Formats: sequence, structure tokens, C-alpha cells
Amino acid sequence: MKQTPKKIAIIGSGLVGSLLAIYLRRRGHDVTVFDRRPDIRTIEFSGRSINLAMSNRGWKSLQGVGIEDVIKKIAIPLDKRAMHVIDTPVYFQKYGKDNEAIWSISRGILNRKMIDLAEEAGVDFKFNEKVWDVNLPEAKIYTGESEKSEWAEYQFDLVFGCDGAFSRVRHKMQRRSRFDYSQDFIDVGYKELTIPPNEDGTHKLDKNSFHIWPRGKFMLIAMPNLDGSFTCTLFMPFDGEVSFEKITTKKEAKVFFKTYFPNVQKEIENLIEDFFKNPTSAMVTMKCYPWTYWDKVALVGDSAHAIVPFYGQGMNAGFEDIYKLNELISIHGDDWEAIFSAYQLERKPNADAIAELSYRNFIEMSSKTADPIFLLQKKIEKYFAEKHPDKWLPVYSRVTFSDKPYTEALQIGDEQEKIMKEIMKIKDIEQVWNSKEVEKKILNLLNY
Amino acid sequence: MKQTPKKIAIIGSGLVGSLLAIYLRRRGHDVTVFDRRPDIRTIEFSGRSINLAMSNRGWKSLQGVGIEDVIKKIAIPLDKRAMHVIDTPVYFQKYGKDNEAIWSISRGILNRKMIDLAEEAGVDFKFNEKVWDVNLPEAKIYTGESEKSEWAEYQFDLVFGCDGAFSRVRHKMQRRSRFDYSQDFIDVGYKELTIPPNEDGTHKLDKNSFHIWPRGKFMLIAMPNLDGSFTCTLFMPFDGEVSFEKITTKKEAKVFFKTYFPNVQKEIENLIEDFFKNPTSAMVTMKCYPWTYWDKVALVGDSAHAIVPFYGQGMNAGFEDIYKLNELISIHGDDWEAIFSAYQLERKPNADAIAELSYRNFIEMSSKTADPIFLLQKKIEKYFAEKHPDKWLPVYSRVTFSDKPYTEALQIGDEQEKIMKEIMKIKDIEQVWNSKEVEKKILNLLNY
Repeated sequence: MKQTPKKIAIIGSGLVGSLLAIYLRRRGHDVTVFDRRPDIRTIEFSGRSINLAMSNRGWKSLQGVGIEDVIKKIAIPLDKRAMHVIDTPVYFQKYGKDNEAIWSISRGILNRKMIDLAEEAGVDFKFNEKVWDVNLPEAKIYTGESEKSEWAEYQFDLVFGCDGAFSRVRHKMQRRSRFDYSQDFIDVGYKELTIPPNEDGTHKLDKNSFHIWPRGKFMLIAMPNLDGSFTCTLFMPFDGEVSFEKITTKKEAKVFFKTYFPNVQKEIENLIEDFFKNPTSAMVTMKCYPWTYWDKVALVGDSAHAIVPFYGQGMNAGFEDIYKLNELISIHGDDWEAIFSAYQLERKPNADAIAELSYRNFIEMSSKTADPIFLLQKKIEKYFAEKHPDKWLPVYSRVTFSDKPYTEALQIGDEQEKIMKEIMKIKDIEQVWNSKEVEKKILNLLNY
Repeated sequence: MKQTPKKIAIIGSGLVGSLLAIYLRRRGHDVTVFDRRPDIRTIEFSGRSINLAMSNRGWKSLQGVGIEDVIKKIAIPLDKRAMHVIDTPVYFQKYGKDNEAIWSISRGILNRKMIDLAEEAGVDFKFNEKVWDVNLPEAKIYTGESEKSEWAEYQFDLVFGCDGAFSRVRHKMQRRSRFDYSQDFIDVGYKELTIPPNEDGTHKLDKNSFHIWPRGKFMLIAMPNLDGSFTCTLFMPFDGEVSFEKITTKKEAKVFFKTYFPNVQKEIENLIEDFFKNPTSAMVTMKCYPWTYWDKVALVGDSAHAIVPFYGQGMNAGFEDIYKLNELISIHGDDWEAIFSAYQLERKPNADAIAELSYRNFIEMSSKTADPIFLLQKKIEKYFAEKHPDKWLPVYSRVTFSDKPYTEALQIGDEQEKIMKEIMKIKDIEQVWNSKEVEKKILNLLNY
């Protein structure tokens, strides 16, 4: 459907803000992006972000405006997990079939590129301009040096809040009556560490793997960068026996890395330096509703649904918001009220589903990876799925390598879990796990 | 334990703020109460508040500073429900045994009296002074005409946020990392209506009853006032078949009241006038954590735990916060960090429990009161509880007429519910509900 060009403000020049800007600009709208921070292309990165894993939903959304290929050039495909279990040689777990992979990409490098692409498309960026207030029914925004300084007023037709988990736009919506909102922090924090490249610029660990050092209540992960380095993230409880609170000196940090991560001894000085240089960050699940205000204002991405990062779906879910929004624009044309209404109705349950799946993955990673029963269950599932790929798509694959709704992944995953609970009750399951009997029982429970 | 006098600010001069002020002043502290609104003793009431039901926990907390008797003089005891079911004569349900009663009291009249009492105790009140910001670690507060005007700074030793569900103090705490927060609105709103007194000043309905007109998805309640009037509250969905949205003309309102409330026909003109004069208000469950900041700031009452009003426990729970806080002050003396830490650890689970119980009562009232199975279950419970008062204290009584923890009420209530689910499975339970067999089975399930 044809669309009348609108004057559109996007608050936030992050990944979601800049992709949305490209989509809307391509449709002929006049798009201005505001960001309270300076242009990310002009500054050093802060070192506060986990490397991103772009998967199916992300790529599909980039494809929608034809920028998939140019982004692939700055990403590295990971087709497997590399498991670093203590006292065991490193072993690999393929992610899926048919060369399925997730793609490691630096948030900063990706963001710079996306802003370049948006500018090329004709988007106007206003950096260092802080939005303090939004007049929702009139789509006016107010910017200024500080909350108490003089403010400039801008009039738009539409305002999109792409300003992340601590969104100022949502903050304004939140003060209305009947706005549901929750923020729940988990008791685990994270810290970014770096493994530098070899002297010849090559990677010190396998380049096409997502590296995991699971240690029960805490874990280290590493993802490759283009320059040969790895961005590592240490996830660990804030307080308790092994925790950020307990490591306060270089000596304690050294003991910690030596004890738990014996195969990164050569990098230890670097890890320790980063440990004290980089901040410890918190992780939050944020939910809210509604996401839109009349035909004037909409929240997209983290501002509407921030999730914990344990499924690698934060950016992918935000990009999928844009993809769906664009589909709805094609359907409803100039009727922005219909677009916004359909958008929030469709996306909200999916956002809740991926929030739940991500939180469960956190629980799974932090408490179950050492449980032999759990590991056996995963082994049986994998064995069965490989034998019957048409009958059993693991939840991880459904989330990561398909564009089926997150709600479906959650629901089917629950059904699969129920079946596996039955299977695990089978007598001597440790011995018979790969038997015909178990296979038949699963097929039976699946109603085949 | 002895306490060093502190300079204390209380934000909010409502019921919780003024009672806390009395408690702290009695301990010799220098107490100033700030309120952004004018002195409630100087203004007309707004008509936005359900009449309050003071029960055991509230009275006990007033008793703690010896003001129970003076407050009882402005309250009316209600020892029963009066059920106004369509096509049935009004019938009564006693609340409990031994003259147990809840007490109807006007929020405005109670608040005026409490401020008088606090002033008599030596508390300083600053009305019309709006707190815009709080420096949490330094216990400083900032007030001024508007958010953007010049602010005055006040330095205190301790700050208490008693500023209700939309607390400014909590708002400041909420912007810190690792602060959990949620606000959930229900899809039912409420509106206050009045039934005026007879010409001779007497009440038009039974004065010592809590009147209920249950109508499935909506309901009307009425509580008596000292002047012979009743404060009624209409609870009804915002949208849908029978809803606030659907009643937009006086004619529609007349049909509504005539159809559903045949026994208040004489008051209909008054009800209709109020219907369009008074606002429709929303109801929210608000949870957060932590409730305190170091030894400097604490949230008390609705600012820490706002609940829906269907158990009549909002004020009672807030007053109980103060009672417990006072007990902890007696234990820990000058160690405010220990006081605050123990306070939030003890009160948070109880606040969550009464939030859950209140929400369940909303569901029960709105969807189950017409279900014959549910009504039969309630009848069996009542029958058994009367025969075995030592073995079965109904949840309602535990919440309303005891000071046992709310957590216990929730837990024991769940156990009772499980037992009743079993009982309702008994064949022909409709016929045998008061038989020896059923009685034995309950005793059995209770492990007697």
C-alpha cells in the first residue's frame, strides 16, 4: 500500500534504531535519529557489551533492506560450540545441520556500519542531543543539556522509542495509568575480558566456535573478532562463594583463573588486567505493555522487551520487531493506528516467550550443566532429533535457525520436555538410552 | 534499647506517614512530614477513595501508640456481610466468631485525625511542599514548585518514603541497577458513589453490615459512614459487554442501575449523578525490592507494596509495617542498617503474600461468585470450620482477625484448597456435603 511521507523521530541510534531508520527512510519518510551519546563512529568502545550472535531472524531483517551481504563481511560464522570442561580435552558440538551457524559480530563495529548505511539512505542523525521528555499525544520531543536546563521542542508525526532497556520514551509512557511494567534483575553479573590475537594476527582458539567454559554457578564464554582477538564474557554471581564480590585483589583473580580455567593460563595477565579495568554489569528482564500510544508513539526492541542474553536473541528479537512492523506497514498503509495496534498484539506474546526462554537458559546453564541426568536427557534428544529431523526440531534450533514464532518454540519446547520427563523415568535409561524401545516410546508419545 | 535522636523526614502525610511520624516522635526523634498536597484538614475530600476496613492488624498498630480508642470513636463495626443477590431477599453472613468485626472508616476523616494526633505529639508538617529528588546515600531531599524550578535542599539523618503507590522516593531508588520493580494493572476500574442518609440522619441500609451486590463480572459494595450515608464503590471492567466504556449517557446509567441493582431504586438519581461526577480509577499491584537504602532511606506502606483492595488489607498491611519496624527498633537500637535490613527481609514475603491473596480475591469475586461448585465448596468449608474451629481457620479470618503472618495465611490457605479439591471429587457431594463421611475425609486429609 502507498504511504504518505511522515516526519519521523527515532530516539536511539543503536542497532534497532539505525535499522528501523533505514526501513522507514526507504519508504520515503523523513527520518531523524536522536541519540544522547556521541556518534559511536567517533569514540572508543566502552567494553560493556557481550559480542553479538546474529542468527536467522537478524539476517532476515537485514535482508529486507538488502544489507545482509555487507554485514556478513564483518561477521564470523560459528557452526559449533567448543566445550572446555575441566580435566577433559576440548570437544565440539555442532549447532545444527546444513552448515547452520550463528555469526559472531562486534556490537560496536556493527553499529558503526549500520549508521553509515542509514546516512547513505538519507537518514539525519542528531548525536549528543538528549531527549528528556515526550508529549505522547502530540508526538513532540524535548531535548536539552540537562533535565533542568532550557529545552528545545521538536514536532514530529511519529516517534519511535529505540532507546534501550532504560528507555526515556517508555519512562514517559510508564507514568500513565494502566501501563503494566516490570524489571527483574538476576543475581548474576557479567564482565567483558579479552584474549588478544597471536602475534601473526591469527586466533588463539578455534575461530569458528562459540567457546564455553561451564563451571556450574558461573561460566566463561568467548566469541571471535575479525582482528584475531576473542571477546570473552565472564558470568558469575554478584555475591556468594565464588562471586565478583569475593575477587578484590590481583592475587585472588589469579587464583580464580588458574583454578577454574586451566587452558587459558597464557592469557592470564591480560584477563586479570581486564577484570579490574572493566565494569561488572547487571542483567535485567524488562516487560511492559502497551508498547504504543495511539498512532503517535511506538517502542521497538529493548525499550519494549529487554531480555537476559543467554539465548543470544536480544538483537535478533529487536530486528524481527522491525521486520514485522514493515510487513504491517505494507498491509495497513497510512493507518498507523492499525499498524501499531497489530504490531503490539503480535509481538508482545513473542517477546514474553523469548524472555522466558532466555531466562530458562540462564537457569539451565548455571545449575544444570553439571547434572548427569540433564546431560543424558540432552543426549537422548539429540540422538532422536538426528534420526527423525522431521519429527523433532530442538527448541534451540527453532529459536536460532528458523523464523517460526518464539511462542511456538516455547510451547513445543514444553511439550518436548514433558515427553523427555517420561522417557527419563524408563528403568535403566542410562543403559538403554539409544535403544529401539526408547525411540519407539518417544514416537509413541509424539503420537506417531 | 536506647536510641540517639535523629533528624527524620517522612515523605507523605497519608495514613502510613502520619502513624509512622507518631511512632518515631514518641521515641524522641525530630520528625518532619512533607506532603506535596495541601493539608487534608483544610480541603474537601476528593471522592476517590474506597472507604477503609480497619481490622486486627490496623488496630494493633494504633494500640502500639495508644490511639486505638480515639480512632474507634470515628469507626463503625461491621460484623457481617449483607448479600444483595438478585431475586433473593437480602441475607447476612457473619464474619467470624466472638463478635469479630471489621470497622468502616472514612479515609479522609481518619487521615485528619491522625495528623491532629501527630501534631499533638510534636511532629512538624510541611504541606504544599513537593519533593522532586532524593540523594539516597546522603539522605538529602529537594523540594520546589516544579521539577524545573529552583529547589530547596534539606539534610536529614533518615528519610522514609510513605508517598504511596506512585512514590517519588521509590522512583529514585528504581533508577539504580539491580532494583526489582513491577506494576500490574487489573482490567477492572472503580468509581465511588454515595447513598445519602435518611432525612432523620439514620442509615438507609443496615448500618453494621458490609453490603455486597455481586453480579459476576462486576459488583457494588457499600460501607456506612458516621453521618448516616453509605460510601458505595462500583467495581466494573473498563471495556467489554458490561463496562464503564459502555455507559456514557444518563439514560444508559439509569438502565444499568435499574437492571442490576433493583433494591437501590430510590437512590438512583444520586447514583447516576455521582457516576458522571466522580472519576473512574484504576487499580494496581506494585512490587519492588529492595525497600531500603543503606541506613538512610526506607519505603513503608503502599510505596513499597501497593495491592488491589479486594481483601481490605492495604492500610492494615502498611500499619503492620510500622508495628514491625518499631519492634525492630526496640531490638537493634541505633543500628539503623540492621533495622532496615531485618525490616525488608521480614516484610517483603508478607507483602507479596497479601498481594497474591488480594489478587485472588479479585478473581474469586469477579468470576467465581456465580459458580455453584464454588459456593458449595465455601459452604462445606464453613460447616467444617464451625464444627472444628481448632482445626480449620478460614483464610479470611486468618488475614482479617489474626496477626499471624500473611505468608502463613497464603500457605495454609493453599493446603486447605488442596483438601477441598479432593472433597469436591466425592461422588454426589451435593447430597452428602454435610455427612459424617465428608467430615471424616477432611479430618483424614488434615492428618487427624
